[in-house]
Amino acid sequence: MSSEFGRLLRISVFGQSHGRAIGVVVDGLPAGEEIDLEELQRFLDRRRPGNSPLSTARRETDVPEFLSGLEGGRTCGAPLCAVIRNADQRSRDYGELADRPRPGHADYAAWVKWKGFADMRGGGHFSGRLTAPLCVAGGIARQILARRGIFVGAHLDSVGGVSDRPFPLWPTAELFEEIAAKPFPVLDDRAGERMREAILAAKEDLDSVGGVIECAAVGLPAGLGEPMFEGVENRLAAALFGIPAVKGVEFGEGFRAAGLRGSENNDPFTVEDGRVRTESNRAGGVLGGITTGMPITMRAAVKPTPSIGKPQKTVSLSAMENAELAIRGRHDPCVAHRAVPVVEAVAAAVLLDMLLEGNHGTF
Amino acid sequence: MSSEFGRLLRISVFGQSHGRAIGVVVDGLPAGEEIDLEELQRFLDRRRPGNSPLSTARRETDVPEFLSGLEGGRTCGAPLCAVIRNADQRSRDYGELADRPRPGHADYAAWVKWKGFADMRGGGHFSGRLTAPLCVAGGIARQILARRGIFVGAHLDSVGGVSDRPFPLWPTAELFEEIAAKPFPVLDDRAGERMREAILAAKEDLDSVGGVIECAAVGLPAGLGEPMFEGVENRLAAALFGIPAVKGVEFGEGFRAAGLRGSENNDPFTVEDGRVRTESNRAGGVLGGITTGMPITMRAAVKPTPSIGKPQKTVSLSAMENAELAIRGRHDPCVAHRAVPVVEAVAAAVLLDMLLEGNHGTF
Amino acid sequence: MSSEFGRLLRISVFGQSHGRAIGVVVDGLPAGEEIDLEELQRFLDRRRPGNSPLSTARRETDVPEFLSGLEGGRTCGAPLCAVIRNADQRSRDYGELADRPRPGHADYAAWVKWKGFADMRGGGHFSGRLTAPLCVAGGIARQILARRGIFVGAHLDSVGGVSDRPFPLWPTAELFEEIAAKPFPVLDDRAGERMREAILAAKEDLDSVGGVIECAAVGLPAGLGEPMFEGVENRLAAALFGIPAVKGVEFGEGFRAAGLRGSENNDPFTVEDGRVRTESNRAGGVLGGITTGMPITMRAAVKPTPSIGKPQKTVSLSAMENAELAIRGRHDPCVAHRAVPVVEAVAAAVLLDMLLEGNHGTF
Amino acid sequence: MSSEFGRLLRISVFGQSHGRAIGVVVDGLPAGEEIDLEELQRFLDRRRPGNSPLSTARRETDVPEFLSGLEGGRTCGAPLCAVIRNADQRSRDYGELADRPRPGHADYAAWVKWKGFADMRGGGHFSGRLTAPLCVAGGIARQILARRGIFVGAHLDSVGGVSDRPFPLWPTAELFEEIAAKPFPVLDDRAGERMREAILAAKEDLDSVGGVIECAAVGLPAGLGEPMFEGVENRLAAALFGIPAVKGVEFGEGFRAAGLRGSENNDPFTVEDGRVRTESNRAGGVLGGITTGMPITMRAAVKPTPSIGKPQKTVSLSAMENAELAIRGRHDPCVAHRAVPVVEAVAAAVLLDMLLEGNHGTF
Repeated sequence: MSSEFGRLLRISVFGQSHGRAIGVVVDGLPAGEEIDLEELQRFLDRRRPGNSPLSTARRETDVPEFLSGLEGGRTCGAPLCAVIRNADQRSRDYGELADRPRPGHADYAAWVKWKGFADMRGGGHFSGRLTAPLCVAGGIARQILARRGIFVGAHLDSVGGVSDRPFPLWPTAELFEEIAAKPFPVLDDRAGERMREAILAAKEDLDSVGGVIECAAVGLPAGLGEPMFEGVENRLAAALFGIPAVKGVEFGEGFRAAGLRGSENNDPFTVEDGRVRTESNRAGGVLGGITTGMPITMRAAVKPTPSIGKPQKTVSLSAMENAELAIRGRHDPCVAHRAVPVVEAVAAAVLLDMLLEGNHGTF
Repeated sequence: MSSEFGRLLRISVFGQSHGRAIGVVVDGLPAGEEIDLEELQRFLDRRRPGNSPLSTARRETDVPEFLSGLEGGRTCGAPLCAVIRNADQRSRDYGELADRPRPGHADYAAWVKWKGFADMRGGGHFSGRLTAPLCVAGGIARQILARRGIFVGAHLDSVGGVSDRPFPLWPTAELFEEIAAKPFPVLDDRAGERMREAILAAKEDLDSVGGVIECAAVGLPAGLGEPMFEGVENRLAAALFGIPAVKGVEFGEGFRAAGLRGSENNDPFTVEDGRVRTESNRAGGVLGGITTGMPITMRAAVKPTPSIGKPQKTVSLSAMENAELAIRGRHDPCVAHRAVPVVEAVAAAVLLDMLLEGNHGTF
Repeated sequence: MSSEFGRLLRISVFGQSHGRAIGVVVDGLPAGEEIDLEELQRFLDRRRPGNSPLSTARRETDVPEFLSGLEGGRTCGAPLCAVIRNADQRSRDYGELADRPRPGHADYAAWVKWKGFADMRGGGHFSGRLTAPLCVAGGIARQILARRGIFVGAHLDSVGGVSDRPFPLWPTAELFEEIAAKPFPVLDDRAGERMREAILAAKEDLDSVGGVIECAAVGLPAGLGEPMFEGVENRLAAALFGIPAVKGVEFGEGFRAAGLRGSENNDPFTVEDGRVRTESNRAGGVLGGITTGMPITMRAAVKPTPSIGKPQKTVSLSAMENAELAIRGRHDPCVAHRAVPVVEAVAAAVLLDMLLEGNHGTF
Repeated sequence: MSSEFGRLLRISVFGQSHGRAIGVVVDGLPAGEEIDLEELQRFLDRRRPGNSPLSTARRETDVPEFLSGLEGGRTCGAPLCAVIRNADQRSRDYGELADRPRPGHADYAAWVKWKGFADMRGGGHFSGRLTAPLCVAGGIARQILARRGIFVGAHLDSVGGVSDRPFPLWPTAELFEEIAAKPFPVLDDRAGERMREAILAAKEDLDSVGGVIECAAVGLPAGLGEPMFEGVENRLAAALFGIPAVKGVEFGEGFRAAGLRGSENNDPFTVEDGRVRTESNRAGGVLGGITTGMPITMRAAVKPTPSIGKPQKTVSLSAMENAELAIRGRHDPCVAHRAVPVVEAVAAAVLLDMLLEGNHGTF
């Protein structure tokens, strides 16, 4: 098994980039939850390659068909299956790619693992396209959470060396919606403008750029998560690394905390309106793997798209000799901005799963 | 459940810092493996607080007793249980700590989760002391891997703003042993000297520092790991976040990759001695969640020890009002150097677990 | 989560009886396995309600569409998703059933669990119809096992008080095929004839009958399975109880063993052609949860179909008062004979999963 | 992994019959639960071999030491570890047994699995002795359940062809206590007397007998359990087959249901005091894998003790030729009566685990 995560809420993603369909089974959704399909579609559209020059030219409408689990607009307790048919698969020859693994892609690893039987057309099951069904699952989780006052949002923290402002100490649902409504998901639009320029400059150079995504979740109760290996951080990280191209995950100050002193990094406790808060949130809302009631904050590093037009060194697997490769065709000069809702989706799914477990710290 | 990880190899850690004993059950070890208990003890000693001023003054011999699973010096297939008795628990009053949660510690989160029933003496189950049994499990895994030519090693990448050299492209078992034999686990001893100075300076200021640990694993076959959510990165990250104080995990270039261009980050494939290699290893040996056969490299960010002597703001949970706290007694001005073998232990355990699954990519 | 089983091979079933489609995701299949779709269809047809008076009149062609995981007739390593569209859902009113739970059905339990939001039309997700995708998964597993000389077969052990002969000590692939080719899956056709009479007699009486299914697996190596809770019996039983209407599972002599003496129940070891065998197989090929190399034998008890035409006592959930119910429409007077391939499917899936793990007893 | 079960409540059993100690880690217990250690000891004593001629002469006090998780008589949220030192291991030679596998025992399967490295002295990790730590875990679960009005009890349903009365439709906590207080756990003491005679007769003949255990759980809410593979039956069965010597598990009428007609087996619903009940309980309190609110009833078949004094046929593994074996020393002529509290323990642990998950059918 591989393409699944979750404990009480199991999310199982299937499909290959150029196969018949991609989709997801979500098992364990609570029953009776109304799903707003228009809102879900808007969420899906945030990751869809648009008409923008920032994205691949592949055209997909990405409208899911619900085969089960959703009746009369409500979840019914049975596993939900959503399917998205693949429309725009170009039938060009993948022969070369099959023999010449693309640097930075899973091609070679998959070729070894599956002894040449992998369907690697368009990246196969490793394609970023698989994040569409992930967004179906996460978009549903997000709606269920929002109904309970729990909101998950994200923005581009940096792209190509340009940085956005960080989230404020207490991000709000309104802020999340505001970012989601923007064509480019940043807090500071001028930073966004420079990020876009960096992406287009890379594109011009037949190259690509990566980025960092900051995600936050507000409204969670304190006491969620288990010590050591089933904490909030463990489970979020395990799932976030499932998003193609993510190579790093950190919570709160993360790697920056390693350079601070304890007196700089510890968040002082304080009482506000009769509730325990911390004055800062360098812990990212998690201590000992357990939520403190402060917003959860995390950052995911997205590597630059490995598919680039520039000629690259590779090997011919059949001849076992060095070779060259110039990837033609459609590809994103950056996927980090499209990955913003994907990070939200994965975070929402993990957090709903943890909430469904309830706080069995006491009985 | 919480304090367990692994699939075929399950590692379950138990104990509280000031309880009777701490320990670990390792279920799923292959039978017939000779365990060198002296070598294991040397491994455990690397994380033990020593006579050094860099560490806590708590004295523990940390010699495990094996209750099961090990007969005549060999694993016998049955679950292995190792227990370490707690010796040096000071019987001083923890009353203040119970009411005044230490900033940066799990005290408050645990208090909410377990409604005041948690045993938080010395950090309880959240204590760094729990990494001793983790090292028993990982130290055993490390020996089993080494016998198959797979070696796991780590060093301090940075502490308090001072950086060590990174691992070379192909770290060796000899290099790992060399670092392990040093009193301070770095490649560049002059950098190590400055790190120690940074730790002592923080100590002088009744403060603490954090650090980053780089870990590498060599000798693994290509094709290990599953796509999406059961990849090498997902599983290593999920386990590494189980080490107290870890707030970030990255593979290969990690967060730095987000600032590179594709042409800079992609590792060119090449044929060397009839085998496919990459000329660089910015992917950290993992593409699409699956090993490439290159060394796996990862880095874990360790936050500064939250226990510091400086007065800090906190709250009184009984009075629900602001309060002050000055932590007295023994504590480490830095735990990052002691966490180096812990990261090795966790990585070794995860990798052995994955190897036991075999490569069922084909049958 | 609920509708999933397996460890390295995960089988996730979705759909409701009267929803758009039913289906299955099989994650973890080895790559490169050729799947004979005609053979698979023949396997599926064994559980399909036929033209026979022994079965429901519902007509379904039950031809799966493969959305992923199968390319060019071979598994490709990525999760396989198969979907079967529901065709013959009668649009009659289920209002009465929603309010009056059918005795022996999941209606009431599901109503409590999902607070009235469950889709219980035709039994919803609890319907025996969900065994069709289970047979897709198991039918594929069966082909993969057969290629390695491992064969799984089953027959009706008893129905309505009439018993078939048991399997011989060493059932063969040929015997399994012979039974599979029969219109009624028994060893002794005269017993089968009397079983059919019992089913028709029950039907005449607007009633139903149950049955017992015996299943065997041959060709498995010794040493498969783990002690205590991850043994062959634990895992087979956990999955077999997932087949609707199964209320008992036993291995070897099972409940009969409880009435024997040790000297009668122990299987004497003997050497045959240089291999260790047992002269009898009352243990059903499993000792201590681990395979002995003898055939695995198990029996599953299938209760009589709860849907019967006879008037029954029930309650009105809206009025909270006693009520009567006479179930009209199509239903099977017996499902035990149709469940024979389902038991094979589940057993094959579990055993393939265990084989994929390999024997990590030693490394 | 092998010797663990549970989802939110993980129970991990370790130890070998003649090793240093046996024990259990229970991870996920709710915090703040008072554990009555005297009551727990009485529970453990029910499975202990007594002075009775019905049991082995092995003497063990079986008093657990709690290394963690229990502070001041209460659970503290951290994993609980309990250890029982092995006292009465006779140091006689096991050489013969190592070479001549005992019929009906795991010896041969373990020898194959672990290539001769298994510690099979006294059955090693497969010994019935491992049920002592299982009873520690289950005895604690039983106390936690009882505090919430949920009671688990069992009795010997039959031994050596002699049957006890079945449980009444609504067994009570008082009835469970009454049986537990008896020297021989039956409802009908005259049946018990004849069972004892059957055991002694078998002993006289250097032989052994098996038995069936009926277990019931009362007080559970309706709506517990998940459809298909995570139902109450699946999970109870998977755990019950972990008890050494169990070869069959059934719920409600179980195998007998297979011989009934639908009209005989369906339990009519009725309203009693404003609550939905069934007039009979042939379903054993479970429909579609989900509790109905009626008592859960199950039966486990225990095979006759394989260790018998009568000479038996076996093989010499070193010589690969037929051989004879007469097992000397202490062994139980029947283990079914001692397994009664073990079945209670396992059932209680599974049910507490399911209750901790809560009913997340709706949110």
